[in-house]
Amino acid sequence: MLKGLLSVLLVLGTLTSTMGKPEKTTVKKEKRVPQTLSRGWGDQLIWAQTYEEALFWSRSRNKPLMVIFHLEDCPHSLAMKKAFAEDKEIQKLADEEFIVLNLMYETTDKHLSPDGQYVPRIILVDPSMTVRADITGRYSNRMYAYEPNDIKLLLSNMQRALKFLKTEL
Amino acid sequence: MLKGLLSVLLVLGTLTSTMGKPEKTTVKKEKRVPQTLSRGWGDQLIWAQTYEEALFWSRSRNKPLMVIFHLEDCPHSLAMKKAFAEDKEIQKLADEEFIVLNLMYETTDKHLSPDGQYVPRIILVDPSMTVRADITGRYSNRMYAYEPNDIKLLLSNMQRALKFLKTEL
Repeated sequence: MLKGLLSVLLVLGTLTSTMGKPEKTTVKKEKRVPQTLSRGWGDQLIWAQTYEEALFWSRSRNKPLMVIFHLEDCPHSLAMKKAFAEDKEIQKLADEEFIVLNLMYETTDKHLSPDGQYVPRIILVDPSMTVRADITGRYSNRMYAYEPNDIKLLLSNMQRALKFLKTEL
Repeated sequence: MLKGLLSVLLVLGTLTSTMGKPEKTTVKKEKRVPQTLSRGWGDQLIWAQTYEEALFWSRSRNKPLMVIFHLEDCPHSLAMKKAFAEDKEIQKLADEEFIVLNLMYETTDKHLSPDGQYVPRIILVDPSMTVRADITGRYSNRMYAYEPNDIKLLLSNMQRALKFLKTEL
């Protein structure tokens, strides 16, 4: 994780290293592409920006929240992102029934890392603001990790999060 | 503020109201434009996504953090956004010397609302993670509010935040 963060910083360092260049503005900066909130996990989804915002939406719209932790230089995250973004069923369900949030930095809420901080990690949260630690993936050492092969498991886990919701109501 | 949030929800409700439509996928959804992290406050700046991320960057790169609270349906926020995005000096200084974060939802850190939660509100935070409550705008009842006419005051406040930093080092 730390290594990941450092890489992010290195990248940023490169991007902003125009600082300290000669005063004259003849140095043409390359135009940056605006960052998106989706970060490639589904441009058509409506992403919450922060955990606070996501919790607010989840409560007020009575939809479960899906929090995706990832890093842009982590090959497992990238592979999962591709699978997630290309899976039409996942995208449709996420769009219609979930509040979605993708984060590259951990929050202060320890409930979001029931078995540690690693990426990729997908945590489902009930609208009652309870982390659904019971909804896990396939790996006993990293219970909330998913690989591209697990995409159907993720889909069924999303459906479980919804079913629980309906049973409770 | 609450009214603002409700309006956001109403907009979102409209955007996602395709739910419950006939099963057939003949209803063509309009393609959404991916949300950007800049939200119009400067597409060329590198925006932090969350407060935690921004604090991490601020500490590790020893740059002050500027947190902009705003709402997309607030005319004062929109006017300030326009002035901020169009001011080349502000954009350059923000790009080179600051960590920037714009938020539409409050965080759990009460230090970010020294005199209440309102928008637009611009709070400067030292890399030591101390909110610079002493750096204020022109209005005694909303000390961290800025209007388009105050853009040069904001610029000088940013310079003050940097100067303090250099004096301390």
